[in-house]
Amino acid sequence: MAEAKVLSGAGLRGQIAGQTALSTVGKEGAGLTYRGYDVRELAKDCQFEEVAYLLLYGELPNAAQLEAYVRRLQGLCDLPQALKEVLERIPADAHPMDVMRTGCSMLGTLEPEHSFEQQLDIADRLLAAFPAIMCYWYRYTHDGVRINCVTGEPDLASHFLALLHDKSPSELHRKVMNVSLILYAEHEFNASTFTGRVCASTLSDLYSCITGAIGSLRGPLHGGANEAAMDLIDRFKTPAEAVAELERMMERKEKIMGFGHAIYSISDPRNEVIKVWSKQLAEEVGDTMIFPISVAIDELMWERKKLFPNADFYHASAYRFMGIPTKLFTPIFVCSRVTGWAAHVFEQRSNNRIIRPSAEYIGVEPRAVPPMAQR
Amino acid sequence: MAEAKVLSGAGLRGQIAGQTALSTVGKEGAGLTYRGYDVRELAKDCQFEEVAYLLLYGELPNAAQLEAYVRRLQGLCDLPQALKEVLERIPADAHPMDVMRTGCSMLGTLEPEHSFEQQLDIADRLLAAFPAIMCYWYRYTHDGVRINCVTGEPDLASHFLALLHDKSPSELHRKVMNVSLILYAEHEFNASTFTGRVCASTLSDLYSCITGAIGSLRGPLHGGANEAAMDLIDRFKTPAEAVAELERMMERKEKIMGFGHAIYSISDPRNEVIKVWSKQLAEEVGDTMIFPISVAIDELMWERKKLFPNADFYHASAYRFMGIPTKLFTPIFVCSRVTGWAAHVFEQRSNNRIIRPSAEYIGVEPRAVPPMAQR
Repeated sequence: MAEAKVLSGAGLRGQIAGQTALSTVGKEGAGLTYRGYDVRELAKDCQFEEVAYLLLYGELPNAAQLEAYVRRLQGLCDLPQALKEVLERIPADAHPMDVMRTGCSMLGTLEPEHSFEQQLDIADRLLAAFPAIMCYWYRYTHDGVRINCVTGEPDLASHFLALLHDKSPSELHRKVMNVSLILYAEHEFNASTFTGRVCASTLSDLYSCITGAIGSLRGPLHGGANEAAMDLIDRFKTPAEAVAELERMMERKEKIMGFGHAIYSISDPRNEVIKVWSKQLAEEVGDTMIFPISVAIDELMWERKKLFPNADFYHASAYRFMGIPTKLFTPIFVCSRVTGWAAHVFEQRSNNRIIRPSAEYIGVEPRAVPPMAQR
Repeated sequence: MAEAKVLSGAGLRGQIAGQTALSTVGKEGAGLTYRGYDVRELAKDCQFEEVAYLLLYGELPNAAQLEAYVRRLQGLCDLPQALKEVLERIPADAHPMDVMRTGCSMLGTLEPEHSFEQQLDIADRLLAAFPAIMCYWYRYTHDGVRINCVTGEPDLASHFLALLHDKSPSELHRKVMNVSLILYAEHEFNASTFTGRVCASTLSDLYSCITGAIGSLRGPLHGGANEAAMDLIDRFKTPAEAVAELERMMERKEKIMGFGHAIYSISDPRNEVIKVWSKQLAEEVGDTMIFPISVAIDELMWERKKLFPNADFYHASAYRFMGIPTKLFTPIFVCSRVTGWAAHVFEQRSNNRIIRPSAEYIGVEPRAVPPMAQR
């Protein structure tokens, strides 16, 4: 073996592990673009299906393409009977990300990817099916009902909210969920995406790549931050109480979720978008607690630590105002990020070499196997 | 963001991505050690459970520890009813690795890892359960029977063969399967193990890490080589026919599976072990075709290309002689490698930083979102 090169720093931080045309994260410390478009602009002007199309097919759709795409996804949102029967066998107290992981893997046994020529079809299928995988299990195990997975809603944002709440969402909720799905769609070589690319580099199937990515997103250092932020906010009744406890937490050097970022150094561009929408939702529901507490924590973190809220922090309150159970926050992330993950798999496949790094050996020197009697 | 460093070469080849005390692969171009022990010595003197214990618990067991460990695994080999019902819903023509991936993920919903203190228990559980996950599905969908997953066999090698064939294996078959499980147990930062470590670095649960690793092992560039070798050998009736066709394949520059290795440059130490056993099995069954064809291909590849057989090549014939269906070759790999994967997850957790590399952006420059009418 040739002499291996030791990478500076753990976790491959700051090391280029491949090429991408999909997004830029944190150029000059801020900013996020999907195929050249500023995510803030996309969140302002587009519906999520346009962004999904952009990531998967390469360019924004025109009106006819968008209409056809939305219709196509509507036709792909029901689940096979065998998958429903599997979801019914997952306990009510299971981790919802385990449900997404198992649902994705099971669908791969029922509708396998026989050839990479099917990759776009399967990405569309997963995009359309994930809201039903999440909600079918949730409603069956929590409400005892077998929901109809076909809602006829005009877009995925409304479709998900309708599956969950059994009624069409308000225009405001539709709009915010749409923005949220756009903001979470793609984020370069984060751990879950990199998991998907390592898997893709063995030329495995798309379901394996997405299943693996879900497993990584499940980790509390990665996808669980919006749930952790909600749990934090839920501990307080007033902004003053929040500030007092946060001061104590900082003294004890406890980690406060929803702030700072591995790549962004100045601000998270997704935060300014979702914060505005969370405020509007707070006004709609007449909230006088959760949003003010969130703002108090936000201001304190900046004042004391110069840490800014990331995409997850105001997502917590926004989701709460829309009546989404906290345990479903990270699965929603899957419903969105499947677009970025799949696009990265396509990219890896298009110019592939198996990802097989080396390790620095720090174990014992060669030794002889001792006979059993001498152990 | 700090200036990112571009790694030389694609696929992180030759780049140190972390530390391990578990194995050395290809030092001086040959050789494989598990915690300092030469794999050839382990395969000669030990049973697989000793090696599993070595990898998971850190040292070889003494006689009392081994006896207790074998008994412990025997008590963990049955499957929960809900998992059996899931396996019954996976079609007969599914990819068997999709079955392993789904079975592992489903077990994670039924017996979740609530705390990392459970990690050894869950690794043992998966080690004991994988043969039944594979064989319960296989026998149900192919033979129409619901097998009893408890065999009472004295070790995992016999347990697997008994589940598959419905009778205790011969002493020779037990021995060879045992050797095979030892040879496949651990192999440093290969793509599936690295997948598991990336997942572990988010502090996700062990089931997610192993599920992701299975998905990567499924890829034809990684785990499928023994199946591909069998398919190649099966194309011929005589050594002469094999040589003639291989010559043509080499002229057409087709890839011939089961030869060469990303890390080993001189030989694969696992090959010399399994080749001897394959020969012995050939003699036992009176084979005059498959083993001679294998040797002819082996010799030709060395003569023409200076390529040596890797672990997978003679595994193909060995498994065939033991009556194992070709489609189960890669799932057996899972039954063994789960030990190495789990040990790597433990190691990652013990000194963790989230694995989050950067990417070189090769996409379009920043651009404005065009109004729908102008697309």
